[in-house]
Amino acid sequence: MPIVTPLTEQFELEFPIILAPMAGFSGGALAAAVGRAGGLGLIGGGYGDGDWLKRELPLAGNEKIGVGFITWSLAKKPELLDLALDHKPRAMFLSFGDLKPFAGKIAAAGVPLIAQVQTVADAKIAASEGAQFIVAQGSEAGGHGSGRGTLPLVPAVIDAVGKIPVIAAGGIADGRGLAAALALGAAGVVCGTAFYASREALTHERIKAAAVAASGDNTVRSSIFDIARRIDWPKRWTIRTLENAFHREWAGKPEALEADATIQAQRYRDAAAAGDADVAAVIVGEAIDLVHEIRPAAEIVRSIGQDAERRIAALNGLVT
Amino acid sequence: MPIVTPLTEQFELEFPIILAPMAGFSGGALAAAVGRAGGLGLIGGGYGDGDWLKRELPLAGNEKIGVGFITWSLAKKPELLDLALDHKPRAMFLSFGDLKPFAGKIAAAGVPLIAQVQTVADAKIAASEGAQFIVAQGSEAGGHGSGRGTLPLVPAVIDAVGKIPVIAAGGIADGRGLAAALALGAAGVVCGTAFYASREALTHERIKAAAVAASGDNTVRSSIFDIARRIDWPKRWTIRTLENAFHREWAGKPEALEADATIQAQRYRDAAAAGDADVAAVIVGEAIDLVHEIRPAAEIVRSIGQDAERRIAALNGLVT
Repeated sequence: MPIVTPLTEQFELEFPIILAPMAGFSGGALAAAVGRAGGLGLIGGGYGDGDWLKRELPLAGNEKIGVGFITWSLAKKPELLDLALDHKPRAMFLSFGDLKPFAGKIAAAGVPLIAQVQTVADAKIAASEGAQFIVAQGSEAGGHGSGRGTLPLVPAVIDAVGKIPVIAAGGIADGRGLAAALALGAAGVVCGTAFYASREALTHERIKAAAVAASGDNTVRSSIFDIARRIDWPKRWTIRTLENAFHREWAGKPEALEADATIQAQRYRDAAAAGDADVAAVIVGEAIDLVHEIRPAAEIVRSIGQDAERRIAALNGLVT
Repeated sequence: MPIVTPLTEQFELEFPIILAPMAGFSGGALAAAVGRAGGLGLIGGGYGDGDWLKRELPLAGNEKIGVGFITWSLAKKPELLDLALDHKPRAMFLSFGDLKPFAGKIAAAGVPLIAQVQTVADAKIAASEGAQFIVAQGSEAGGHGSGRGTLPLVPAVIDAVGKIPVIAAGGIADGRGLAAALALGAAGVVCGTAFYASREALTHERIKAAAVAASGDNTVRSSIFDIARRIDWPKRWTIRTLENAFHREWAGKPEALEADATIQAQRYRDAAAAGDADVAAVIVGEAIDLVHEIRPAAEIVRSIGQDAERRIAALNGLVT
């Protein structure tokens, strides 16, 4: 008994579930696995590494997938949009920046544009700039985001953008979260944390192990890991990760970290290569409480979708 | 067609909705109005002003209401628990501190104990200390709280506390939020922001006007207003308010505010008395986007409850 929403209708999905285009983690194999299982798989084009994209796009094989970019970063390498569009993506997903320079070209290619925002004000701008779907992303999300909570943000965005379908992101990793998002009026969900430690994710195996062992009580949103990685993120967006030893060492001392950047950036790179979760970022959101093991992505998609269907039936049973 | 949950069954409610015991705002008249409309009304005993409690408890008239306290503050005036229990409250609601010194006496009085927590770890402690209901409060909430988001916190707390019913708080101000909370598996919701500007709330009329005009994009969680009011809150809990001129003036400068405390505390008191929303705190959460006018509390209770019932029916219609 499939759930039908504007999202499932647009992309002919079995479940209203989108794989977050996690930069460097959502590769071709993961995106294809989510797509084959009935969701919408997106490759994480991220900061725009052309070689990475050229390698990962073909790894989706015959499965048609979408591509996501960090918008402010794409603005520095706009040719990567052409590379993505040449692969006839199922959707383009843009987050963290101004859509305007890209929306026209995406529309001309006939590709649906999904825009992710973190505030009601930005949702109105995205609506005016041609987004076909708007993702309202709450602070609970792993990775980059901002300060608003998913539960009150989603209905406020729905009220603000008229007939454009709204999708919920941040804090959703099981069927309960999907059912709740649909109850809020969302057309579906974006899940990152649920797939970060999936079998197909390009996450280091030691980092996956650290993720599935973690509690949502122990995540933190800050700029520490962006400084360590020397990525110059606009200050309005921060990154949620586990609060590990490296974070505790530098929290509240961004200037000191900047001053020691050469040494710390090398230390960070070495740790990331080794999968050292005490130093490298474990980029998960608060929903990590709900992720207990490393599983194939298809199993994750089906369990979220099918559990939501059961939840909705049970919810109906509460109304006597 | 009422919604039936362990919360509605315990208190024989028409709707699974609890009025947050907002210190100084949730008085006897508001608590009684919520109770008469089919919810659970709680007086905000707050920091423990005995004279305020003695005045407000009788204002509920014949309607049986509950009482809430800030636990760390009650520990300094434990006699106020006796005052509350003498009125045979419908429930005791404790938040922000250790239940243990009070749980035994509340149980002996035969009064149900509702404990509010902000993390999975604290939910486990509350479960072990005798809470009959556990409120999982997300950071979106107005007033005091902590950092976790409601949407992922509620299912994680449900998984952590076994058979104890869990209630959602933070970010819920309409039927969509209630339906979503029930979808997550919660037994009901606590609403503060929805009632802060209700007709019966003891909120200054000018502050109510500022609240209903506000956007959830413009709230902030910090300690600035606690410093200004000279209330020595434990650092782990902060207060969410609108980001007004006073907050912008002092944000990031707590030491300077402490140093000027005598003058600023007087300025704050004068502003609060005058309802000057540029200086006094407008204590609302992110769900303020969903509150558009000053309404009677009974109308708010019924619209949240009845809209949730409609939402649940509509949700069922999505599953084909």
